[in-house]
Amino acid sequence: MTTHTGHTNAIPASRVIGTDVYNTAGDKIGVIQDIMLEKQNNGIMFAVIGFGGFLGIGERYHAIPWSLLDYEKTHDGYVVPFTKEQLEAAPAHSVNELTGDDGRAARDASYEYWKVTPYWF
Amino acid sequence: MTTHTGHTNAIPASRVIGTDVYNTAGDKIGVIQDIMLEKQNNGIMFAVIGFGGFLGIGERYHAIPWSLLDYEKTHDGYVVPFTKEQLEAAPAHSVNELTGDDGRAARDASYEYWKVTPYWF
Repeated sequence: MTTHTGHTNAIPASRVIGTDVYNTAGDKIGVIQDIMLEKQNNGIMFAVIGFGGFLGIGERYHAIPWSLLDYEKTHDGYVVPFTKEQLEAAPAHSVNELTGDDGRAARDASYEYWKVTPYWF
Repeated sequence: MTTHTGHTNAIPASRVIGTDVYNTAGDKIGVIQDIMLEKQNNGIMFAVIGFGGFLGIGERYHAIPWSLLDYEKTHDGYVVPFTKEQLEAAPAHSVNELTGDDGRAARDASYEYWKVTPYWF
């Protein structure tokens, strides 16, 4: 992905969290709430995009493959290559699904829906 | 690594950041300040352990391979398999070194010093 700082290759998680996310039409769709990390290896599982509701009270999130986040300076945020309709139809998950053993189920469903090559093969 | 939640395989970055870190003698050595992520692939480069000083004012940090963090319930924190002396002799980096192109230099120096198999081969 291209980044806030141009051609560097590292970004701290704390800087990614809280960054706005836009769709291809330029609409803000949410904020990066968190980044899910593999405990058993060095993999970034996915970014979690949320929409500002109360955590845990029926809130559902989108697990988005890390490689789909493209930083764009004009928005000072990430652009994801989807339309509003594609997002509405995308897999959405509860907090438990994202953080439990099902983290991998959420990840697999997400990579499959967005047709991103798995990093874990 | 073993974790706060037992046998799950995913952990959010926001939960890792701020967790205390202990050495093998049980001394608290610092706090996880951040987690450095690869922009160009799905790799977790390293965790950044800081010691509470002012960011940017001559502060130096340890880049620690992700796989060396072992969560321990009794401390409610991570234990790293090093002594105080090993840490004092370990590579330490400024904020710029950790976040610039030199993120990879910091990572390589860290993995070499701690003798951890690179995940990026």
